[in-house]
Parts: sequence; structure tokens; C-alpha cells
Amino acid sequence: MSLDTLMTPAALVDLDRVERNTRTMAERAHRLGVRLRPHVKTHACVEIARLQVQGHFGGVTVSTFAEARRFADAGFTDLTHAVPLAVGRLPEAAELTQRLERFSVLVDGPETVAAIEDCARERDVRFSVFLKVDCGYHRAGVDPADPDSARLAAALAASEHVDFRGLLTHAGHSYHCHDRDEVAVVAAQERDVIVAFAERLRADGVTVPEVSVGSTPTCSVVDDLTGVTEIRPGNNVFFDRFQRTIGSCDDDGPAFFVLTTVIARHSGRRQVLLDAGALALSKDAGASHVDPDAGYGELQDLDGRPLPGLRLHALSQEHGQVEAAPGVELPAVGQRLRVLPNHSCLSAACFRSYQVVRGREPVAEWDAPRGW
Amino acid sequence: MSLDTLMTPAALVDLDRVERNTRTMAERAHRLGVRLRPHVKTHACVEIARLQVQGHFGGVTVSTFAEARRFADAGFTDLTHAVPLAVGRLPEAAELTQRLERFSVLVDGPETVAAIEDCARERDVRFSVFLKVDCGYHRAGVDPADPDSARLAAALAASEHVDFRGLLTHAGHSYHCHDRDEVAVVAAQERDVIVAFAERLRADGVTVPEVSVGSTPTCSVVDDLTGVTEIRPGNNVFFDRFQRTIGSCDDDGPAFFVLTTVIARHSGRRQVLLDAGALALSKDAGASHVDPDAGYGELQDLDGRPLPGLRLHALSQEHGQVEAAPGVELPAVGQRLRVLPNHSCLSAACFRSYQVVRGREPVAEWDAPRGW
Repeated sequence: MSLDTLMTPAALVDLDRVERNTRTMAERAHRLGVRLRPHVKTHACVEIARLQVQGHFGGVTVSTFAEARRFADAGFTDLTHAVPLAVGRLPEAAELTQRLERFSVLVDGPETVAAIEDCARERDVRFSVFLKVDCGYHRAGVDPADPDSARLAAALAASEHVDFRGLLTHAGHSYHCHDRDEVAVVAAQERDVIVAFAERLRADGVTVPEVSVGSTPTCSVVDDLTGVTEIRPGNNVFFDRFQRTIGSCDDDGPAFFVLTTVIARHSGRRQVLLDAGALALSKDAGASHVDPDAGYGELQDLDGRPLPGLRLHALSQEHGQVEAAPGVELPAVGQRLRVLPNHSCLSAACFRSYQVVRGREPVAEWDAPRGW
Repeated sequence: MSLDTLMTPAALVDLDRVERNTRTMAERAHRLGVRLRPHVKTHACVEIARLQVQGHFGGVTVSTFAEARRFADAGFTDLTHAVPLAVGRLPEAAELTQRLERFSVLVDGPETVAAIEDCARERDVRFSVFLKVDCGYHRAGVDPADPDSARLAAALAASEHVDFRGLLTHAGHSYHCHDRDEVAVVAAQERDVIVAFAERLRADGVTVPEVSVGSTPTCSVVDDLTGVTEIRPGNNVFFDRFQRTIGSCDDDGPAFFVLTTVIARHSGRRQVLLDAGALALSKDAGASHVDPDAGYGELQDLDGRPLPGLRLHALSQEHGQVEAAPGVELPAVGQRLRVLPNHSCLSAACFRSYQVVRGREPVAEWDAPRGW
């Protein structure tokens, strides 16, 4: 098989770049004096996770119970489930807690803590728990300025049913930044907010073993993580057009592409159609706050050279619509192109396996099951 | 299992509504004097397709070769693959052509016709081919006003390697409409453009057996299909929030929902988090041209009553963020909700099986494999 004969649409993983990206983050973590617990949700692939943890302790971060079980089956022994725990999943969390060296869950409110304690008593399990802290993204996490948050941390630390692991945050608002300078500001905020909260808790006598941060933009930019013990970047494995636009990576960062074929050519309306639509690329609008006309991905030739003047302006379920600027030649029917997706996490999740390539040569096919 | 115990996120299919929706369209087709060849891409589920074809000849429309093979395995014998054919898939098209009573493909340019003829000669196959016509959507299809289009139709009709099935169009621009009156205008255009082109071809001596149209909005609204032989709606099985907004269905139309659990509650910032994110709902913005503040789906209780004042304003991979208007009570942690997605085709494709319910009672689980 080659890029000329693989069935399209296909998910291409550039292994040289994945190795470079994972090595870069592993070295950054060592330099910054923190443990690396990479997130696997971007790819959901055991082989890629093994590259991510090289040179570190082997712990990873997951976002679903299906992922947790698969990574446990594959020999990973220390997992953090980094989404606030749904109380209905407590039996599964208990099972993983008993099975693994460590399976940590997240809470950010007293209702879930109460449910955890009930389940712990019933099943005689001691849950490993992080308190999720909001450092400014305002998605999940307790407000560190709210006195209830310190009380909740103290209750977790005092609970006989809980092994309180510490604090965890995610500066998702780094994705609203326009460039590396802005990301650096968010990264400092992420660190400062959680470290200050950890210090306040410690001053109150609460033991806070871990102080965990992580978003790919902040982890790619930050140069001082004093007080932090662990980082959890994940998207940096693949990066994508969004990350490149806001400066998380350079032009050689993106490592995930969709291989597609031109299926129709309409020279009258200066358009071609691709066989990669919303079910291969996702409808993520990308870094539209920086580049509102970006469309749904960057078109490239099979060697990765961008094709300026061609814009992937619309997606339907199985069609990608490309319009050509005046004077730009339309690709021929049957021609194969690469798309650098706006958001690799959502595009990769459209595929159940990846075609792993070195340069233009397919060298392996790796499974990436999904579900919950 | 019940809606209170099913694992979340889950895909819920309201069987009473699917039966009503499919019956309504089957009756419309009879009343309009056309054959019904429903599209299965919205659900990719054999059991649902069997409901769609009831009372009609049994032919269906597919959008991938994986779908085509699965429906062939399930006993469907007459399929139309309604995306312009990728020349690299010709061997698979040849195999399906030989295996089935009829497997029709789409072309909209001379390059693909030449490739079909080459493959037909090599493999001694006679391909069943539709000419795709652009009726104003400007995605796929030849321009009927272009003399080359009539020449291409004549060449297909004259080819010894092709069984020319006729003309096929899709008024995808019906999705740009604001209401039923606007949809009715597009539906008339869809019909008039393709029927006029068929008549011109016939006047030139070209035999045009089929005149096939189809989009859920136009097929749900049109009241005269004189000259059309076949319709291909698909989304009408599930409808969705988009279709309801533009008037394709009434409040009882939508039949696909995502069951989700509240995993966090932040009364300070008046938000809750759901365990349904972009990988359960898709990032489709819905009918934002009519309702720019719609967010990513309508929140409902488990009996399908809308929850006004709660807005699903942001999605990340596994999180849905809900904000509450002033004075509106926040749902509790652990509470289960339904989301009516903006676009059922893309949300349903996130799941590999559906929980089929009558009212609140799960009665079956139906598989819906995907891929290409």
C-alpha cells in the first residue's frame, strides 16, 4: 500500500513527527521538573501512548471509561480519568480502582464526593480523587476563591474512603489566545492559581500531594512550573491547524492528516469535491477567532506542501467542497490530497484505525477504538 | 435497563416517532406518484431501513461503500450510491454491481465516465449510472444549462458499458431556508430544473428512465412532483432541531436524542456540565441562520419536555457546557437529560448502536456500524 492506493478517506499519522512531538514534551517536562502524565484522548491509541510516556513514569490521562479499560488491558497501571466523574459510572470506577495500581477520578462538587463515599463504603474501595480547580476557563472545577472549595478539599483529605491526590486544573482558555505571548499569560495564570490554592490548603494543614496542570498550548509555551508536580498535555502528539495558528507548534508540528481523493471537478464554478466530509474531519471551525476565513482544514499535496488558493469552505456528511481562487489550477479528478484538520482530536475520533507513515510510506496500521 | 440506568452518553431512537416519520414519507411518495428510495446515511441501521422502505419497492440510497456492503449483506438488492464516485473505488463498485440486482453510481464529469468505461472493459461489468445534476445547491452535479452536460448524458446513454439510469439531484440549499414557504420555492426549483433537463434530453432522443430528487426539507414540503420518478429523503427518519427550525417537521418529528448525565454543577457561575460533548453531539452549529443563539442542541427532560432557560452553549470533546438564565433552576448532579441535537446525521454517526425506546422504555439495541 502507498498513499496512492490506500482507501480514502484515511487517517494518516506521521510517525517521525509524533516521535519528535512526544520527545519534545518529554524533555520539556524533565527540564521543568515535573512528571508527565500525557492525555491519550486525542488518539485513543495504545502504540502512540507508549511513545508519549517514554522517559517518564508511565502514567496517562484518559477521558472515558472505555479508554481506561483498554489502556488497563494494554498494561498501563496508573490512569487519571480527567472529566468530572458521572455518579452513574461509580461501579466502573470502583472496578478500575481495585484492578490498577492507581485509578484517579475528578470531582468538583460535594454531591459527587458524597456519592463516592457511599460507593466506597458499599464496595469497600478507597477511591483516588483529585479536586478539579477552575483556573479561569470556567468549564469544570471549583472556584479557588470560594471558601467552600477549601472546605471540600479538606473534607476529601480527611475522608477515610478517599486517597486525596491533590489539585488538578486545565487552562482550556488558552485556546482563546491569538499567539504564544497570550498563551504564556494564560500558562502563568494556570500555574499561579493552582499553586496558590495548594499553598493555602497546605497552610491550613491539608496535605496536597499533586498539583497537576495541562493544556497543550500552555504546556508547549510555559517556562516555569515551580510548585507544579505534573503536566497532562495530549493534543501535542498530533497538534493541528488550530495549535499552529495560535503558536503552540511550528510548521513541522502537525502530525495527523486526512488522506482524501478529488471526486468531482466543476471548472465553471471553480470548485472540486473531496471524499472527506464532516464524518472524516468534524465540523470544528478551528481558530476562527484568529482566522475567520480558515474553512475546515488546510489542503496540502502528499508531501505536505500547502496548496494556497484552495479553500475547504464547506462540509457535508461525506463531501468536502473546495473553491479555487482566481488563477489557481483546480486539482484533477482522482488526485489525492492531504487535509490538515482544524482540530485533530475530533477528526482522529472519526477513524477506528490510523495509517502510520514515515514520509510517504505506510509502515503500520494502528487501532484506535472509541466509545464510552 | 431504563432511561435511569442506561450508560450515558447514549443514542436514543424514539421508535413510535420513527414509525410515524417513515409512514408519513411513504404515504407522501404514494400520493405524489413517485417511488421512494430512502437514504440510510442518517442512521446506517438495517432495522431502521426496513421501516423506511415499507410499502415501497425496497431500494435504498447509501453514501459509503461500507454501508453498501452491509446493506447488501442484509438482503437489500437495489442500492444507489449517492456521492460522486471516487475512481479509486471502481473495483468495489464493480463487485457490488455484479453482486446486486442493481447498484447505481453517480457521475458528474467526463473523467469519471472515462474511468468507468475502462473498468467496465477490464472487468466485463456494465455499470448502472446516474448523471448528477446541480439544481442550485452548487455542491455536486453538472450545470444543466451547459451544453457539455447534455453531451455527457448522451454519451452515457450511448455507452455499451453503461446502463444509463437517468438524472439525480439534491436540493441541499433547502437547508439555507428559513421556513416552509422558502423550502417550497426550493422544492419547485429542484423539480423544475431536473424535469426540464430530462425533457430536453428526451427531445434530443436520449432515454431518461429515472428523474430522482431528494432532500428531507423539499420532500417534506413539496406537493407536486410531476415528471419526477423517485425521491430519496433520509433525515426525515430522525429529523432534528435544524429540520424543526426550518419547518420540515412539527414538534413531534424529532426521533433521535442523546441521553446524558449532569456531571458537575456550578451555581456560582450558573452552569452545569454534561457528559455529552462534541464526540456525542458533533459540533454542527445547526440552523444558525435562523437562530444564531441556538447553541449545540435543545435540552429536554426524559419525557421530552424542553427545558427553557438552559442553553448548551459550548462543547469540548467529552463535556457539554450548559448555562442557566437568571431565575432558572440548575439541574442536579446525577440528573439525566435528553439533548435534541442540531443535526441528527452527525450526532447519530458518533454512536455504534442505538437504544431504541417506546416512550421511556428501552425495547431494543440496534447496531449502526460506520466507516468507508
